Amino acid sequence: MIQCQCTIRVRYAETDMMGFVHHQNYVQYFEHARVELLDQIGYPYSELEKHGFFLPVLEVGIRYIQSNTFDDRLTVHCQMRKLPSVRIHLHYEVYRGDLLTTTGESKHAFIDRSGRPCRPPATLLERCAPYFESA
Amino acid sequence: MIQCQCTIRVRYAETDMMGFVHHQNYVQYFEHARVELLDQIGYPYSELEKHGFFLPVLEVGIRYIQSNTFDDRLTVHCQMRKLPSVRIHLHYEVYRGDLLTTTGESKHAFIDRSGRPCRPPATLLERCAPYFESA
Amino acid sequence: MIQCQCTIRVRYAETDMMGFVHHQNYVQYFEHARVELLDQIGYPYSELEKHGFFLPVLEVGIRYIQSNTFDDRLTVHCQMRKLPSVRIHLHYEVYRGDLLTTTGESKHAFIDRSGRPCRPPATLLERCAPYFESA
Amino acid sequence: MIQCQCTIRVRYAETDMMGFVHHQNYVQYFEHARVELLDQIGYPYSELEKHGFFLPVLEVGIRYIQSNTFDDRLTVHCQMRKLPSVRIHLHYEVYRGDLLTTTGESKHAFIDRSGRPCRPPATLLERCAPYFESA
Repeated sequence: MIQCQCTIRVRYAETDMMGFVHHQNYVQYFEHARVELLDQIGYPYSELEKHGFFLPVLEVGIRYIQSNTFDDRLTVHCQMRKLPSVRIHLHYEVYRGDLLTTTGESKHAFIDRSGRPCRPPATLLERCAPYFESA
Repeated sequence: MIQCQCTIRVRYAETDMMGFVHHQNYVQYFEHARVELLDQIGYPYSELEKHGFFLPVLEVGIRYIQSNTFDDRLTVHCQMRKLPSVRIHLHYEVYRGDLLTTTGESKHAFIDRSGRPCRPPATLLERCAPYFESA
Repeated sequence: MIQCQCTIRVRYAETDMMGFVHHQNYVQYFEHARVELLDQIGYPYSELEKHGFFLPVLEVGIRYIQSNTFDDRLTVHCQMRKLPSVRIHLHYEVYRGDLLTTTGESKHAFIDRSGRPCRPPATLLERCAPYFESA
Repeated sequence: MIQCQCTIRVRYAETDMMGFVHHQNYVQYFEHARVELLDQIGYPYSELEKHGFFLPVLEVGIRYIQSNTFDDRLTVHCQMRKLPSVRIHLHYEVYRGDLLTTTGESKHAFIDRSGRPCRPPATLLERCAPYFESA
């Protein structure tokens, strides 16, 4: 399993007139955590695109347990529980302090520059492998 | 069942560097369709809030089948398949012409000004009822 | 002079916890009006990009006179007061009913696919010319 | 003069199909820097609102000198060059490394809960004063 966590400070523009973070922004928070997870593996998403691979989203699911608001410091946990194949599946948890506020998951496919589904880059798999080796 | 459809013209700001509508924007498209569904029932969301009811999102799920891009005209279909109770459950389909590009659903709870869960306003139920009467 | 106007219905996601449209969204409303102005001329922005021209923003200025909120219907007026040269200069006014709520302007440069400044496409100039011919 | 600087890592969702940060996002970057400037003074914006003061935007101006893109690390400098009165005037500069990419400014008014213009809170003025005392 690969895990990472990153910190988000809620921006004013991300709130809505109900006084909370508008629910669409969690999609962006998850994305941010994904980017940090790839950094941690040593294969940043920006490199992935430079090498001609893209990782569009196939599915997103979000469950809102507690609301957050302006200036809250959120910790977004991101987990990859299985080695990527033609797809990547990720899980997310958003905490404010110890309080779990939001959970979610996303599925992605690798595509090449022509938009066709493809295998993940070998380098990515190599970088991921050590995290999944059993003891 | 209550159904409505609305039209979205994709804004440039909604695209990302992959050249497509960034996946977060569908959350906003769904919201737009929801607002139009409540208009159609004759109980606009803005009135709901004026009367002290709020409808935060509990869950959102989105499946991306085909990408869309700048200037595409999308039709968002929104369905309420059951009468609202303490919760509302909605289904969405986004079409570009005849092509189904995206599906999704959202669940909402009614809360009052103090943030406590509550029953939906009677007026809303009255306006919804005729759509669910069997022949 | 070329003028156009378009209608925006404010989305919930565009409000902030102050209860008004967050000020960043006017940038998007102006962009929407720009796109409609090019439609009216008969040279949609999407075609411009297909022909290898891009119109990045050099400057934006916005003055907020009155706030707007969820569900407001806004009319955005966009004016091109001079024929485009290597630059385009546009003026905007946002009305809610008869009330002028916001004004602004934007300056843009034409660039080609390599990112270099260039002259506007001849077709665009031809389409614009009739609007600027004096009586 | 009061100065602060903060760091922004560009999110994928902030890019557009031209491949750059969409110009609307700088409005949010400026806001972020403003919030950090108030932190530095010791009077966070969230406290300001709790005390019944709001700081809506009257004017924003932005000049785009160089584009930025996904994953760029930007430093946003924010300056308050004069003590706040009924208005606050702020200046911004966005750097990528040593390169100045964007400049801007914003003007704000203090309003109270009823939306009426008001004097800034005394505490804010006290916290600002030391920065403006001459040698």
